[in-house]
Amino acid sequence: MTTGARVLLDTAAAHGIDVCFANPGTTEMPIVEALDAVPAIRPVLGLFEGVCTGAADGFARIAGRPASTLLHLGPGFANGIANLHNARRAHSPVLNVVGDHASWHLAYDAPLTSDIHSLARPVSGWVATCAAADRLAADTAAAIHATSTFPRLPATLVVPLDHQQATVPARVPAPGPVPTRPRVGGDVVEECAKALRAARTTVLLLGDDALTERGQRAAAAILAATGATAFSETFPAVAERGGGLPDVDRLPYFPEVAQKALAEADLVLLVGAREPVSYFGYAGIPALLAPPGSVRTLARPGEDGAGALADLAEALGAPPARAATVDPITAPQSGELTPQTVGAVLAAHLPDGAIVSVEGGTCGYPFFTASARAARHTTITNTGGAIGQGLPVAVGAAIAAPGRRVIALQSDGSAQYTIQALWTMAREQLPITVLVAANQRYGVLQAELGRIGAPLDGPATRSLTALTEPSIGFVELATGYGVPAVRAASVPDLTAELGRALAAGGPALIEMAL
Amino acid sequence: MTTGARVLLDTAAAHGIDVCFANPGTTEMPIVEALDAVPAIRPVLGLFEGVCTGAADGFARIAGRPASTLLHLGPGFANGIANLHNARRAHSPVLNVVGDHASWHLAYDAPLTSDIHSLARPVSGWVATCAAADRLAADTAAAIHATSTFPRLPATLVVPLDHQQATVPARVPAPGPVPTRPRVGGDVVEECAKALRAARTTVLLLGDDALTERGQRAAAAILAATGATAFSETFPAVAERGGGLPDVDRLPYFPEVAQKALAEADLVLLVGAREPVSYFGYAGIPALLAPPGSVRTLARPGEDGAGALADLAEALGAPPARAATVDPITAPQSGELTPQTVGAVLAAHLPDGAIVSVEGGTCGYPFFTASARAARHTTITNTGGAIGQGLPVAVGAAIAAPGRRVIALQSDGSAQYTIQALWTMAREQLPITVLVAANQRYGVLQAELGRIGAPLDGPATRSLTALTEPSIGFVELATGYGVPAVRAASVPDLTAELGRALAAGGPALIEMAL
Repeated sequence: MTTGARVLLDTAAAHGIDVCFANPGTTEMPIVEALDAVPAIRPVLGLFEGVCTGAADGFARIAGRPASTLLHLGPGFANGIANLHNARRAHSPVLNVVGDHASWHLAYDAPLTSDIHSLARPVSGWVATCAAADRLAADTAAAIHATSTFPRLPATLVVPLDHQQATVPARVPAPGPVPTRPRVGGDVVEECAKALRAARTTVLLLGDDALTERGQRAAAAILAATGATAFSETFPAVAERGGGLPDVDRLPYFPEVAQKALAEADLVLLVGAREPVSYFGYAGIPALLAPPGSVRTLARPGEDGAGALADLAEALGAPPARAATVDPITAPQSGELTPQTVGAVLAAHLPDGAIVSVEGGTCGYPFFTASARAARHTTITNTGGAIGQGLPVAVGAAIAAPGRRVIALQSDGSAQYTIQALWTMAREQLPITVLVAANQRYGVLQAELGRIGAPLDGPATRSLTALTEPSIGFVELATGYGVPAVRAASVPDLTAELGRALAAGGPALIEMAL
Repeated sequence: MTTGARVLLDTAAAHGIDVCFANPGTTEMPIVEALDAVPAIRPVLGLFEGVCTGAADGFARIAGRPASTLLHLGPGFANGIANLHNARRAHSPVLNVVGDHASWHLAYDAPLTSDIHSLARPVSGWVATCAAADRLAADTAAAIHATSTFPRLPATLVVPLDHQQATVPARVPAPGPVPTRPRVGGDVVEECAKALRAARTTVLLLGDDALTERGQRAAAAILAATGATAFSETFPAVAERGGGLPDVDRLPYFPEVAQKALAEADLVLLVGAREPVSYFGYAGIPALLAPPGSVRTLARPGEDGAGALADLAEALGAPPARAATVDPITAPQSGELTPQTVGAVLAAHLPDGAIVSVEGGTCGYPFFTASARAARHTTITNTGGAIGQGLPVAVGAAIAAPGRRVIALQSDGSAQYTIQALWTMAREQLPITVLVAANQRYGVLQAELGRIGAPLDGPATRSLTALTEPSIGFVELATGYGVPAVRAASVPDLTAELGRALAAGGPALIEMAL
């Protein structure tokens, strides 16, 4: 016999969970205590729950399997919702374990009582409250199975305090086979091949596992054989880039530009991507970005898109494409920091095998433009638009891939939502280099105000979109959280500091004055 | 004719809203633009939504009326849920305005789309999505009326982008009478008077408006006439203290101690407070803390508890009690900082009319013990247990009460959840003195681990409850956010720095090494 908390952790460990991003409270203390007896699961503390859920998302994107979070009742879970929203959009597997009041205590509506299911459903593919202590092992296994099954979504298991403390049999269900991506049927591949042969102008829109190396190689073969072009979805969960992979640009963000990019296509073939829609609805601009009637699906998100691309290449008789020849990047040597020079400096100095978490448009797009010719690296972007994901996913990525360098290319406004992630970087001594684009404004909001013709100089407009008076001192914030930090104001500055930061064993932050 | 955004703001202003705690995004830009045309509403930017919702809660507690928040779709709202949970438990009126996708765009499930109602219901007494632009004025008025009606709860109005932009009649509904607290019936007062006369040992449990000066004066008369004793609820939303008011202690937090405090009572009379329940459920300890059969209600939260106390005093023939004689506090002059010396130093130097936001047990309880004899002040506590409310409510309190000094007595762990509040203090130059009790641990969790007999020295337990490696530099964090900050390590240090900080016009932070 053992405790409910212990059997929960033993089951999680047996089913492949080896990290727990935690911000526990009183109702999770038995699980915290039990973690000391289950060394297979590494506890990682976040000072704020959004750090934990974002880290679990980043871990899943890089490791390809779930981590767990440990969160405190409804309010603690609520603080993690924004990054779970991004995880849901990324189809990331995440096991959320949420403590709750003892089951017999719920009826008294104590201060921390709330409707956890109502909070969890919008961001979870599976939600349940453990109904009895002797169901904890089975419920844990079911939650992990649910979140691991394609198309993967976070799963949330609510565990009352008394069940964690109860004495239960030490019986751990045997893990079944790890779920795999459903294969795309040969008939679908054949029909797509036929459509592609018939089409005048084809655009492949790649997402999910079509952006792995295997997927991109197969896509490159199709492009070379057919003259089709390709985009990646605008905000891919994870994408391989550089090092001789084809230069697959992202579909542009603003709908007019995206529509223009697709305007000539009579076939837009979706591979792991959804039909492209305008990020926001603008009066007079259609929501659907591809020409009417042009859209066809080879693989849905969660299906074996890379395999389907390989099958499609074969059906088309397309020979493997050569690796793109890579002109070395000429890094700028002098001048001011601009989004373009920042993108170019980072692309030129990117270590081989780096993981780049990109949040924020300021430097994100210029970096993408520059980095197709960089060393091989993996990019992670904000899939759901809930800002404050860049730093936490970097934490999770670093823990998922020891030995790989992680770079967080981060806008200043969005960094603030989960700034506490810096502390976890310091605590775990993660090899993360944070580059903050400190342009001291919500740039995207000022752009949107421009789109609706609003002046930017009204007192309210200015007050709500400028990050000045006072400006935010990221160097001081990083120092407060134990992360070494400097400011860079020019290209030579940034180049030198980036070199130092990339050589360091632990985290470092560079505030870039733009 | 005008825009939907404008008529929303004009209606809000006409119905008494004069502050908007905002963290807007693209779907709120028309409202941001319209704020420039409605100077009656002051926009206050928070770098994180929990700052906005907590500030609205603090504003409501001090001003007694709602402020608005402006939040960005589901994920932005989600970041504000934890402090709305506290606002709900405080019965604070709050008008949440949440932008959403254009109504015709929702069907496309763009990345930021989510189920906002499911997120909002657990923390709102009223939730609606505006169904048509010409209903915006009426919906805004209805939301304000709903949140202003006792017992007050936050109201959440979701406003699609197209309705904000639409052209609508510039017609603002006339405000009705401001809702008032329902009076308690004479029969209830009579029955309570009878029960009190018959009881051997009576405890009054005061909450809500029973903790106003008027309520406490009436309670003091009843205590003096009957020999009853009184507690305040453990976590009052707002309470007047000091300056000759009776020394009403809070009902203790841990259930064994609270039960002992009530054990002798054959009558526990609730006035604006709910029946006391254990904060968490502990095996073997009953959830209900008052002796069985002892509980009777004079006034429910939201009813006119202060009036009911006055009526009860009259029914009992109790003459007005004299103001308690106040022995001046002797402040310690030397020694280490401990929770006791911190509480005593602050109580001794508290400016008349100060507002004290207390979050965290470390110094909170000792301050309460010391401050009954302090100058007259108002305390605010964490009503719902969602931590990260202390700094935001201080922001809202300062904006609600210009000219009053605000002090945030804040534990270090809980400060981290909404640390971005410091920036808003600097931006608005609010007269807030932040005292951080830097004991570098989640003290309450270590206490709870002790209660379940868990050792504190296991690697996981230690890692998840100690805020060390690295320790958090609050001075550096405050500096990064533009708030002047110092460390204090002894009683003379703290005394000198507190004097300087209280004399300053704007915010200041003192990190107290405990």
